[in-house]
Amino acid sequence: MQKKYIGPYISLRHFLDALEYLEHVLHIDEINQDEYEATALMYRMIEKYSAQEAPVLFFDQILSKNRIFKKSSIGNLFGKWDLEAMALGIVPTNSSRENYKLAIKKIEQHIDENGKWPRIKPIVIEARKAPCKENILQGENIDLFNFPFLQTNPADNGCYINTGSVILEDTSLGRNIGTYRCQIKNSNTIGINPQINQDGWKFLNDLRAQGEKNADVAIALGTDPITFSMSGSKVAKYGEDELEIAGGLIGEAIETVKCETNNIHVPANSELILEGQIPLNKMESEGPFGEMYGYIGEEKKENFFMKVKAITHRNNPIIPNQFTGITRGCLTAPIEASLNRKYRSHFKEFVGLYYPLEYPGFCFVNLGKTTTEKTFEIGRYISTTLKIAKITILFDKDVDIHNLNEVLHALGSRWQPQRSSEIIEKASSLSGDPSSNKKGEGNRIIIDATRNATESQNNQSFAKMNIECLRSEFPNLLERIDEKFKEII
Amino acid sequence: MQKKYIGPYISLRHFLDALEYLEHVLHIDEINQDEYEATALMYRMIEKYSAQEAPVLFFDQILSKNRIFKKSSIGNLFGKWDLEAMALGIVPTNSSRENYKLAIKKIEQHIDENGKWPRIKPIVIEARKAPCKENILQGENIDLFNFPFLQTNPADNGCYINTGSVILEDTSLGRNIGTYRCQIKNSNTIGINPQINQDGWKFLNDLRAQGEKNADVAIALGTDPITFSMSGSKVAKYGEDELEIAGGLIGEAIETVKCETNNIHVPANSELILEGQIPLNKMESEGPFGEMYGYIGEEKKENFFMKVKAITHRNNPIIPNQFTGITRGCLTAPIEASLNRKYRSHFKEFVGLYYPLEYPGFCFVNLGKTTTEKTFEIGRYISTTLKIAKITILFDKDVDIHNLNEVLHALGSRWQPQRSSEIIEKASSLSGDPSSNKKGEGNRIIIDATRNATESQNNQSFAKMNIECLRSEFPNLLERIDEKFKEII
Repeated sequence: MQKKYIGPYISLRHFLDALEYLEHVLHIDEINQDEYEATALMYRMIEKYSAQEAPVLFFDQILSKNRIFKKSSIGNLFGKWDLEAMALGIVPTNSSRENYKLAIKKIEQHIDENGKWPRIKPIVIEARKAPCKENILQGENIDLFNFPFLQTNPADNGCYINTGSVILEDTSLGRNIGTYRCQIKNSNTIGINPQINQDGWKFLNDLRAQGEKNADVAIALGTDPITFSMSGSKVAKYGEDELEIAGGLIGEAIETVKCETNNIHVPANSELILEGQIPLNKMESEGPFGEMYGYIGEEKKENFFMKVKAITHRNNPIIPNQFTGITRGCLTAPIEASLNRKYRSHFKEFVGLYYPLEYPGFCFVNLGKTTTEKTFEIGRYISTTLKIAKITILFDKDVDIHNLNEVLHALGSRWQPQRSSEIIEKASSLSGDPSSNKKGEGNRIIIDATRNATESQNNQSFAKMNIECLRSEFPNLLERIDEKFKEII
Repeated sequence: MQKKYIGPYISLRHFLDALEYLEHVLHIDEINQDEYEATALMYRMIEKYSAQEAPVLFFDQILSKNRIFKKSSIGNLFGKWDLEAMALGIVPTNSSRENYKLAIKKIEQHIDENGKWPRIKPIVIEARKAPCKENILQGENIDLFNFPFLQTNPADNGCYINTGSVILEDTSLGRNIGTYRCQIKNSNTIGINPQINQDGWKFLNDLRAQGEKNADVAIALGTDPITFSMSGSKVAKYGEDELEIAGGLIGEAIETVKCETNNIHVPANSELILEGQIPLNKMESEGPFGEMYGYIGEEKKENFFMKVKAITHRNNPIIPNQFTGITRGCLTAPIEASLNRKYRSHFKEFVGLYYPLEYPGFCFVNLGKTTTEKTFEIGRYISTTLKIAKITILFDKDVDIHNLNEVLHALGSRWQPQRSSEIIEKASSLSGDPSSNKKGEGNRIIIDATRNATESQNNQSFAKMNIECLRSEFPNLLERIDEKFKEII
């Protein structure tokens, strides 16, 4: 593979060039989102290829809110597992699942022995060298409807920016970057929706507590994939700078540039930057919006909003749309690797976890051999520290938790429900879980689907799997078959 | 489609012609099962295509127990959902899942209003017209090793007939046909393994109780698909004739022919017939064998066996191998349709069920809107009357229970574990479930993942799904997109 196509990528454009080269992109000549065709097509693509293997869709021409946008709208930019590897500079193998695991492994190795992510401080470059300054719009030239921020669902309250990195900076609080959905309210007003207790929410409240009336803010769209991934994850703790961690992962400093209308620094290679202010003493309603869980959330009565003061952008900016609730919205390997390192530092028996974003609520965990007591201790800990883990299922190491077939086969054959379950009656629920008893409250289950659950009761060893015996008698058989029948496998 | 390729098929050969015509068959030039290559390839095919979509494999040349067999061994003959439709005479659509549902629907309509299957009595034809009599082997010419009965797993205790219809007949007991695994013990001895309380087991015990010393028996291999499906299911109750029900489903009488060495009548179009006797007062050990559950079962100490007295077969007989525990082993639509009719007659709220054979232990159920009490009543009834239903999950009608994505999405988003689960502590377990507490005993769970579970607690209606709103605002959108983008979907 040509070196220029190998990641990590310093901009969305570099990433896209590699995606095109490796044929991960499907171009759609013409599509009408005013009739939700792009949304419908995305559903069908996920159905056909799965969330982990559906291609990136590049809408060569899209109609949105009665305007035609050319070569500037893109969907499912981070869904494919192959792309997780590519974004980290791994040359992808033929196996999508393998690529995802390689990505996780690479990040686990990247994190140092104390669990810290190596950092490289961002640098500031001159505005004239910053691609995101190729076009600068202020005053009457500001019109958010000039860009393809799509309305994904007919039930959404309008168009949304759902792939924006919302950047807040303050001399004492430092920098915070987070991905919050942003409703386009009019040509220069945007709802800003950090969940209660998310870092962005804390940041704004801390500013208000300091007596500030307004918060300066910038939203970066179409950054390099790693920066977007850090923005969308909790890898950086409150007070830590996402850009330093992103730089550390890319292996070079993120280039930033100062905003036109405030002192915030934004990734210079971004496709588009929205600059503005968030009033801290005024809230507006926001939503409803079709949430990640796949259900329409309620209207929020009290939500921050932003007045846009300037828009700067590259020539022909490309705006990714997340199709929330349909596609996997960002690189998840960094998040998983980070959680793996965290839980492994607590429990030596913990091997790894996986929570499929396309079925929110599940968390599959691999454990080394341990006792029933320890299994539930680990399950309980994960279940109470990881919001999405409503249904936490613990497996032996031999189960490939990234392979749903193996997960379900092991659950069906190794779990005895009465013997090997523990319920947590009162727990927090994931925002958007429509089955919650009360808003934000729900219950959880921990399932022990390890062999030990049976063995410790029966005092005899668990039956061997057919494939286990095959592998042990013919260690390289499956790999040899892959080679012998490579034209059909 | 040419009429001759449309089912139902009166023989395996007719079925195979149609499969070849519709390109459901992948020919494998040469494969060595003495190194378990066919087993390994089958694992890889299922991994690549899924259990419902993997092709039929025709082994043009296979090495087994040091003998080469040409054009006579076939695998995954009933795995593809498309084939379920074809076998019933439905011209398949492009959607595999749709085809499976069409098959279920067709059978549900076939069963009469009282739940009875229409019957057509088999007819007897002359031996000279029966394909299965093209070759007749007796005495010293009998050698089971001359046919490609494969050893599927290295841990199996030898080669097995795992697609045989074991036929028992008695003047008072009638005819019983069942698919039991049959271990090849030597050139003319076969283990016969009906599970305790399966019809074949009852039949043999009833004969013994009548004072019989031996039971006449025949094993038919490579019958038409419907007959094999009836043999492998519990559609026919004890005392009912599988061949009458198969004839009713095919729409014409099954042609049978009398055995050479006893009075049993066998399907005349079978590829191969084994005739013989089962001693009723003598048992032998059998197994171990890699079971349907995917685990190696234990050796059985006491098992029936059969002495082969004659082998009759078509020219170049084709022997299907089931690859037990890897592929879906027989047409399942008749079984599901039959269960649907049964449970619907008990509960008007019951809509349908599905239990994926590739993950034994699960049973997914669709219900119409009902109360929590009724939901658990239905769940309890299914859970205690359907052995495989260790984990019974009840869903609303909108969830496509044949679509695993929808099943998991609904389970993750509509289930509150503490609120909506019921455990059955003492229940029977499926044979081969390695997590059983004691052999044949285990526990079960009933899960209410309906919207009503939440609504009845919260007194407010459940959040709408994003896709639900899309469908209701744009009723034909998804279908229109299928048409507009048919080249890529």
